[in-house]
Amino acid sequence: MADLARLSINQATTREQHSLAEAIAAYAGAGVTGISIWRDKLDECGLDEAVRMVQDHGLRVSGLCRAGQFPGGDAASRQASIDDSLLAVDQAVALGADCLIVVAGGLPRGSKDLAGARSMIRDGLGAVLPHARAAGMPVAIEPLHPMYAAERCAINTLGQALDLCDELGPGVGVAVDVYHLWWDPDLQAQIDRAGERVLAYHVCDWLVPTTDLLLDRGMMGDGVIDIPQISAWVEDSGYDGLIEVEIFSAGNWWKRPGDEVVRACRERIQSAV
Amino acid sequence: MADLARLSINQATTREQHSLAEAIAAYAGAGVTGISIWRDKLDECGLDEAVRMVQDHGLRVSGLCRAGQFPGGDAASRQASIDDSLLAVDQAVALGADCLIVVAGGLPRGSKDLAGARSMIRDGLGAVLPHARAAGMPVAIEPLHPMYAAERCAINTLGQALDLCDELGPGVGVAVDVYHLWWDPDLQAQIDRAGERVLAYHVCDWLVPTTDLLLDRGMMGDGVIDIPQISAWVEDSGYDGLIEVEIFSAGNWWKRPGDEVVRACRERIQSAV
Repeated sequence: MADLARLSINQATTREQHSLAEAIAAYAGAGVTGISIWRDKLDECGLDEAVRMVQDHGLRVSGLCRAGQFPGGDAASRQASIDDSLLAVDQAVALGADCLIVVAGGLPRGSKDLAGARSMIRDGLGAVLPHARAAGMPVAIEPLHPMYAAERCAINTLGQALDLCDELGPGVGVAVDVYHLWWDPDLQAQIDRAGERVLAYHVCDWLVPTTDLLLDRGMMGDGVIDIPQISAWVEDSGYDGLIEVEIFSAGNWWKRPGDEVVRACRERIQSAV
Repeated sequence: MADLARLSINQATTREQHSLAEAIAAYAGAGVTGISIWRDKLDECGLDEAVRMVQDHGLRVSGLCRAGQFPGGDAASRQASIDDSLLAVDQAVALGADCLIVVAGGLPRGSKDLAGARSMIRDGLGAVLPHARAAGMPVAIEPLHPMYAAERCAINTLGQALDLCDELGPGVGVAVDVYHLWWDPDLQAQIDRAGERVLAYHVCDWLVPTTDLLLDRGMMGDGVIDIPQISAWVEDSGYDGLIEVEIFSAGNWWKRPGDEVVRACRERIQSAV
C-alpha cells in the first residue's frame, strides 16, 4: 500500500468545508505532503497570497486544476479558453506546481460534432504548449470518464490522450485518474505505453450504486476499483510522484468535518491505494 | 434518414405503459415493423401465447432481451446464468427473433476483479454458443457504456466485444447501441471491423444534462449524439436489418401515453436517425 509521504489532497475533496487558506492549513497541519489547487479557489484568495501560504506551510503543489475547455462555438470563445489556459500556465509556475491539469472540454452548446470538438482540443493545446514548454510547466491531459464526453471532456481514454500527446510533441503528458479509467480493458497496456508521460496519479473509488454522475465519488476502499492493481501499473511506468486524492461527494464527504476527511485520506492511502 | 419500414421498438420503451400483449397490439396497430421483447414481460405472458400474438400481428422480433450476466461469486451461480441463457436461446428461436441479446454482467458482489469477471463472461458465452449455433440463433454481445462496468456489463467498447467474438468463433456478433458507444473515438473503425457481425442496431439519445445513470435516455434528436453519422457507419458495415428504439426514461417517456411514445418513435426514426 502507498507511502503516506506521497499523499496529496485535491482541495475539491474538502471544497465545501475549506477556503484555500483553510485547506492549506488543515492539510499541512495533518502532515499531508501535497495539495492540488483549483483556480476558482485561487481567484478568491489571490495568487500572491496563495503562493505565500503554500510556501509558509511547506506544501508541495501536485497540480493546478485546471486549464482547457477548448471547444467553443466561435473563434472568440476558443481564443478565450486559450488565453485562460496561458494564464493558468503562469499561475502553475508561480505555485511551483508539478503540472497543470487540462480538462479538455466537451461539445460546444448545440453541437453534435464530437470529432470537431476533438480537433478544437488539439488546436487549443497546440496553442498553449509553446508557452508551457518555455515556462517549464508540464501539461497533463486528464482523460475523463466517457459519461462526461458531452459536457466536460471529449478525451475519454488513456489511449486517446496518448495519441494526442504523440501528435503534440514534448511538454505534454497525462493524468491517470482511477475513477475515469478503471473500466478500460486496455488500461494496463496504455499506462505502460505512457511511461514517463504519467505526470499525475489521482485516486478515489467507484461506488455501487453510484447515484450521481458527478458528485458521488467514493473514498478509496469504499467502492469496486482494484486501486492497488492500478497503482502497481502506474509504479511500473516509473511514476514516483505524489498520489492525489480527489473526491467529489455532495452526499457524504462534503458533509463531514474537514479534519475527518483529511484523516480518512491519510488512513486510506495507506490501506487501500 | 431511416426508412420507417426498418423501425422496431424495444418494449422497454413503453415498459410502464404496456404489458407484452398491449405493446404488440400498440406497435402493430401503428404500423411498426418490429418489436424487441424482454424476458420478464415474456414470463408474465407465457412463451406460447407470446409466439401466437407476435405471429397474429405479423410483427418481426428484432431481438430477445436478454441472456448473459455470466460472472458470479461461485460455480453454482455461474452455471445458473449459463442455464438461463440456454433457455433464452430456445425462447428466441420460438419467437423467430433476429438475435439473442447478451448483456454480459459486471462484477460479482464483493469482487473487484474486473479481469476475472471478463474471463467468466468469455467462459459463459463459450458454454452457451454450441447450443445457439446448433439452434441457428445468432448471439449479439451488446457492449454497454463504461458507467455500467461495475453492475451490469464489463464489456464496454465495441473493440472489446469484437475481440471476444474473435476468440469465440462463429455464431456470435455485436449489438451496436448509440447510447453506449457514441463517445468512442474508435467507433467508426470498430463498426467497419465488425462488418457482418453487426447483428442489431439500437438508437436513442444522450441528454444534456443526464440526470440518472440508467433511466434518463432521450428520444432520438433530443440529445447530442450524431445518430445519422453512426447510422451511416452501420450502413457501410452492410447491416440492413431493423433499427430498434430502446429508451429507458423514468422522468419523461415512461410517463406519457403509450400511443404518443410510439408516434414519436415513428416520427423520429425518419427525422433523426
